[in-house]
Amino acid sequence: KMLGRVLCTVLFMGALPSLAELSQGHISVVLLGATGDLAKKYLWQGLFHLYMDQVSSGHSFTFHGAALTALEPGQRLMFDVLKKLACPPDESPNRCAVLKDQFLKLSQYHQLKTAENYTALNREIEMLLRQEGLQEAGRIFYFSVPPFAYTEIARHINSTCRPPPGAWLRVVLEKPFGHDLQSAQQLAAELKSFFREEEMYRVDHYLGKQAVAHILPFRDQNRQFLDPIWNRHHVERVEVVLKETVDAKGRTSFYEQYGVIRDVLQNHLTEALLFLTMELPANVSRAEEVLQCKLQAFQSLQRLEKSSAVLGQYQAYASQVQEELQKPQDYISTTPTFAGVLIHSDNLRWEGVPLLLTSGKALDERVGYVRVLFKNRAYCTQSETLRDAEHSQCKAKQIIFYIGHGALNTPAVLVSRNLFRPVMPKGSWREAVTGSDLHVFGQPLSDYYVYSPVKERDAYSVLISNIYHGRKDFFITTENLLASWGFWTPLLDSISHQPLRIYPGGVENQHLLDFEMVSGEVTFTLAEPEELLNPSRQMPSDYKTIQSKFRQSPLVSAWAEDLISQLASDIEKAASRTVARRGQFHLALSGGSSPVVLFQRLARHHYAFPWKHTHVWLVDERCVPLTDTESNFFSLHSHLLQSVRVPYFNIHPMPVYLNQRLCVEEDGGTELYAKEIMALVANASFDLVLLGMGSDGHTASLFPQSENGLEGTQAVVLTESPVKPHQRMSFSLPLINKARRVFVLVLGKGKHDITTLVSRVGHEPRKWPVSGVSPSSGQLVWYVDYEALLG
Amino acid sequence: KMLGRVLCTVLFMGALPSLAELSQGHISVVLLGATGDLAKKYLWQGLFHLYMDQVSSGHSFTFHGAALTALEPGQRLMFDVLKKLACPPDESPNRCAVLKDQFLKLSQYHQLKTAENYTALNREIEMLLRQEGLQEAGRIFYFSVPPFAYTEIARHINSTCRPPPGAWLRVVLEKPFGHDLQSAQQLAAELKSFFREEEMYRVDHYLGKQAVAHILPFRDQNRQFLDPIWNRHHVERVEVVLKETVDAKGRTSFYEQYGVIRDVLQNHLTEALLFLTMELPANVSRAEEVLQCKLQAFQSLQRLEKSSAVLGQYQAYASQVQEELQKPQDYISTTPTFAGVLIHSDNLRWEGVPLLLTSGKALDERVGYVRVLFKNRAYCTQSETLRDAEHSQCKAKQIIFYIGHGALNTPAVLVSRNLFRPVMPKGSWREAVTGSDLHVFGQPLSDYYVYSPVKERDAYSVLISNIYHGRKDFFITTENLLASWGFWTPLLDSISHQPLRIYPGGVENQHLLDFEMVSGEVTFTLAEPEELLNPSRQMPSDYKTIQSKFRQSPLVSAWAEDLISQLASDIEKAASRTVARRGQFHLALSGGSSPVVLFQRLARHHYAFPWKHTHVWLVDERCVPLTDTESNFFSLHSHLLQSVRVPYFNIHPMPVYLNQRLCVEEDGGTELYAKEIMALVANASFDLVLLGMGSDGHTASLFPQSENGLEGTQAVVLTESPVKPHQRMSFSLPLINKARRVFVLVLGKGKHDITTLVSRVGHEPRKWPVSGVSPSSGQLVWYVDYEALLG
Repeated sequence: KMLGRVLCTVLFMGALPSLAELSQGHISVVLLGATGDLAKKYLWQGLFHLYMDQVSSGHSFTFHGAALTALEPGQRLMFDVLKKLACPPDESPNRCAVLKDQFLKLSQYHQLKTAENYTALNREIEMLLRQEGLQEAGRIFYFSVPPFAYTEIARHINSTCRPPPGAWLRVVLEKPFGHDLQSAQQLAAELKSFFREEEMYRVDHYLGKQAVAHILPFRDQNRQFLDPIWNRHHVERVEVVLKETVDAKGRTSFYEQYGVIRDVLQNHLTEALLFLTMELPANVSRAEEVLQCKLQAFQSLQRLEKSSAVLGQYQAYASQVQEELQKPQDYISTTPTFAGVLIHSDNLRWEGVPLLLTSGKALDERVGYVRVLFKNRAYCTQSETLRDAEHSQCKAKQIIFYIGHGALNTPAVLVSRNLFRPVMPKGSWREAVTGSDLHVFGQPLSDYYVYSPVKERDAYSVLISNIYHGRKDFFITTENLLASWGFWTPLLDSISHQPLRIYPGGVENQHLLDFEMVSGEVTFTLAEPEELLNPSRQMPSDYKTIQSKFRQSPLVSAWAEDLISQLASDIEKAASRTVARRGQFHLALSGGSSPVVLFQRLARHHYAFPWKHTHVWLVDERCVPLTDTESNFFSLHSHLLQSVRVPYFNIHPMPVYLNQRLCVEEDGGTELYAKEIMALVANASFDLVLLGMGSDGHTASLFPQSENGLEGTQAVVLTESPVKPHQRMSFSLPLINKARRVFVLVLGKGKHDITTLVSRVGHEPRKWPVSGVSPSSGQLVWYVDYEALLG
Repeated sequence: KMLGRVLCTVLFMGALPSLAELSQGHISVVLLGATGDLAKKYLWQGLFHLYMDQVSSGHSFTFHGAALTALEPGQRLMFDVLKKLACPPDESPNRCAVLKDQFLKLSQYHQLKTAENYTALNREIEMLLRQEGLQEAGRIFYFSVPPFAYTEIARHINSTCRPPPGAWLRVVLEKPFGHDLQSAQQLAAELKSFFREEEMYRVDHYLGKQAVAHILPFRDQNRQFLDPIWNRHHVERVEVVLKETVDAKGRTSFYEQYGVIRDVLQNHLTEALLFLTMELPANVSRAEEVLQCKLQAFQSLQRLEKSSAVLGQYQAYASQVQEELQKPQDYISTTPTFAGVLIHSDNLRWEGVPLLLTSGKALDERVGYVRVLFKNRAYCTQSETLRDAEHSQCKAKQIIFYIGHGALNTPAVLVSRNLFRPVMPKGSWREAVTGSDLHVFGQPLSDYYVYSPVKERDAYSVLISNIYHGRKDFFITTENLLASWGFWTPLLDSISHQPLRIYPGGVENQHLLDFEMVSGEVTFTLAEPEELLNPSRQMPSDYKTIQSKFRQSPLVSAWAEDLISQLASDIEKAASRTVARRGQFHLALSGGSSPVVLFQRLARHHYAFPWKHTHVWLVDERCVPLTDTESNFFSLHSHLLQSVRVPYFNIHPMPVYLNQRLCVEEDGGTELYAKEIMALVANASFDLVLLGMGSDGHTASLFPQSENGLEGTQAVVLTESPVKPHQRMSFSLPLINKARRVFVLVLGKGKHDITTLVSRVGHEPRKWPVSGVSPSSGQLVWYVDYEALLG
């Protein structure tokens, strides 16, 4: 009856669609959570926009608000919202008033609580269509409800509200989609049992923000300018930023479970970042191609570590949580309300380019943007004062997708004038007049080409229109969602007990939340306020290592971190001197976990290390293929070799794999390695051998009671380990003892007992192989950390 | 008699040294070229400074001006100069007047032309000393003469003017020290036959500039701040700049032979750069340690290419040369008066950091500086307008050694306040008051800590004082000189016929001399003015490659550069698709010279290439060790592998070297490689095989009439090449023909005949092995450049 009335109205008005045009079919939109905050603020307005835009499309519509509230009060609540729907400024008031009237008539409230309610809804839709003799085009179910309600609703829709064959079903889901990888997988699996992938539209409303939605089209339309510069040679950094002034007050019951990373970074900021960094598909409007490129981009992101993020919490948050969630006074929340995260991609295009994601509540301003800052590759010979402002290549070059608010207070695309004049779609973006002397991102606005949307539309209007058009590229597929959670979950796990920097909120934050990137990590620029008050100013090189004797040889001891840095610098010193004297440096490294930190330190902090003239050898190896993660060489490769420039020819993995099999004696791997050593290392005397010590007193892969390698003439031997993988290849003690320097590294409490024992025993290699390390004419130094030494 | 008079004077004045203090000995300073420009402008003044500073040192002095001019006019000329000697502002006028009077009395003119003149000079010195009963401490001979006169003078000094045993000889030499490596070596060898290394003081007066001289002490005294940031992770770029407003008018007879690189870059700017980039010796005041570090720094500089420099010549230079050197009107000078050079160091500390050297005549201002600009590693959460200017880490960070002139008009050391407050030696540098609102290097002067010298001394005064003190670290040793020429000579050779950008001079240059760095090369930012007037605007992808057929297979043809870029992008496309489909990509590459350009292109321009999942194989190899420069693998390594991140495990050089010998059949290298292929490449069917074609029709290392590899079942074979090295290992035709894709690359005029021939012949692999390339189920594409195709 509702539709009948409307059709009459429509037929009386010439400007509105005729019956013939309506023949494309009918669409029923069901908004679940019709009286909730999101619906009130955006969704009804978006649906009204859809109706205004599509009233002449040939489709007819009905809108069904639904909630748990009973019919009468629910109806009242809902129509209170509908009455307040606004007309867009670009619409004629007359037309809008008529359409709004129709929209109200096409809308209806339903209580949806029980299975019967759903059956009734389905019956009503069917009846209506039958009465009006309309073909059904499809149904949209918009889930604007808390996630715990998803499964139940999904079950009902699937079992009783599916449209008949030939008409489509589109269910629209709002985040949160889980709170980590596992929960997201579970939710995805449940939804999958009710809906097909193509039926699900997961909303990330950022994808509806006009500036974000334009990133891919912009890259596509400006390929000719961007192709040569869209890479690590030209891009200095990428920033994706969402700053809010509001705090979490009134929403802590949600926020306390999620925090800023789950709330904003995992979804909005990550999606915006990937639009920027993904390889550009040949056709950017094909959702499937875009998805594939995005998934590839996810794969090339480097794993986040604890040190990839700085985290903060505004001061008032704790008391808000205590109050709203009835927590005790001493309750400490570990939920971050501010995060700065440094991301790196392995992709050759972006390798080494810092990708920064930042968001927080209670900051000094509300603003969102995606910013690409280019490197300054120019040298301007003319002095600064004489430079032509518009054309100087020495000014900063940037491209900014300005999402909104902030100084500009409008979505915009900004391109530095010394970069290029961008191609922009005429119909939807127009060049803005920039008379003002506003400064943005360090430059006057007049330094940019500035474009803003012809029609400003809020994100939900854009998204609802895309749901109607079936444009899935504006939504998050299951694969996309899981890839994102897969990326973020390790960080979330590792920071769950991380200390947070407390900040006062607003402009009072001053520089407290500024942070810096060093060697792939981020840290706050300012020390903690308490530290600021009491600068203890320990010089790093003061009293940090002690020098003593251990088994008659020099002992260096310190806390693990200082010890490693001392060892790394001693190795570098040895290398530099040796290369200066003899042109090359033969370094033999052990496997195991202790050296990993050393490898990382060497890779990151030793710029003058003469890698070009260093030969890298293995002291021991497990009999597994080199590409096995258990392989010592594999670990050495991932933590050191892939970061430094050792020539291929100077890398000498142990030949544990010959003739398609592992460590078979007849294949002569040990002889082969020994020969290689003889051929390259003068007198088979290594410049430096780095050893470890096992808790059973083993060193290299020479275990107690070993049949091979403790004595004799063989340089390289096969041995048996008591732990898996049992088979090993190893330097023999006699070979080790020929070295010019032997450094033994011992780390951790677990080594305390053996360290104490070995400090007392004599030369008993059969019992404790490490006690047989005693270079005949070289130098032996023990590097033992305090935990191993003192327990 | 001269000295006697002075001694009397001295004895009458209490403030001056007593006889007892004079007992340290006498120093004779001989200034050759005493009436020349340099002597007039700087050297006499420097000697006077020395005398003022050292009059109480315990040494006595005499000063001997010498020139070719006869005694009487020479004397007059010289004393005209001496009378005008200025008193420094920091000296009391009374004391200065007395000392100047003494200085004049201690000075004497000599004609030095013939051997007899030198003998006479020596005799006079000896007599004087005998008369006064003085011990001789040493003699300084300052060569302020053109280089062609060096040898002659050196011979005379060595044979007749050496001081007696126990006293030292110091000869001071002024540049130019040769004009390329060979001439510098020759000159060095000649001088070596007259003087010992420690006797020679080669002046680079830049090392006497106070700001340059302070670079090493600054680095030493600020180690604690600089150690963590003095590397590629923190430094964005280094600029060493000397801009002049004067031109070469009146000096073209010198300038035309040298040009800006030899005149300024090879010496002054290079030395300043190395002070900045060399590893810091433990003791910066030990000349020998400094030298060793500097030589190491030279070694790590990457070889300069033609594309490392942009060159210019001011417009008036041509007519100045024509006039001054009596050249015809159509004479074209290829001497640059402006150069911007981009240098890179291989050292891990500086790898990838652009080191820019720039100098020119007829520019807009006179200024010299050494500038280190740090990367911006900070993200400032607070909005720009609210940032605290002094502490914001988001402002530029720089350290500048300001040599002089320019806006500051004084030597200075500037350090951004957000970096650190530097440690400066109190006695010699003081903090400058920076009340002015001057802007330097993009920032107000108030953003820096600014230090200037307590006493401003010109470079020659500093250097003469250092000669007196025997501080050789302020001078250029022979090794240092030759290392510098060794570095610059290849560039000088390669640019000798390079076109120069003509610039009007002064402020009119505008942006004409601005330049930019892209992929390790520099180019002027603006196109040549004529191009600016007629922008032809060819879109790069327009009509550049043609597609056709060759031997029934697809042919791609273009000019070599476009062809390579097409081939590289086709290979990338194949790689990406294959990895997406099967997870890995097996790429087999040929040796030879044509692929080198391709390798470089792949290394520099293909950011999305899935190297991590690519296996690299060799199609053929020469039987030489892998580290031999003749080795195909060695070439592949240097041009491609060392620049991209192919995992070690995915690199498969051919096993031409087994059991310490090359390609011996019994060692089974071919079987080994074949087995490796079988194990990793499904069906031994490579995803892509890249071949070349020899002018005899060979491909891979399969030569006409080869006994092996043209047919049969062997996958990998040993073959014989008609050219050295004769022995080869190669894929066989049957293996090649199993590939999914075979691309044949043919470049250059030299291949035109065989290309024409092969286009006509049938399948005759015995005569023309390349004609046997015919993948059984794969795709064959020919990439032939226009020169090979059209001759």
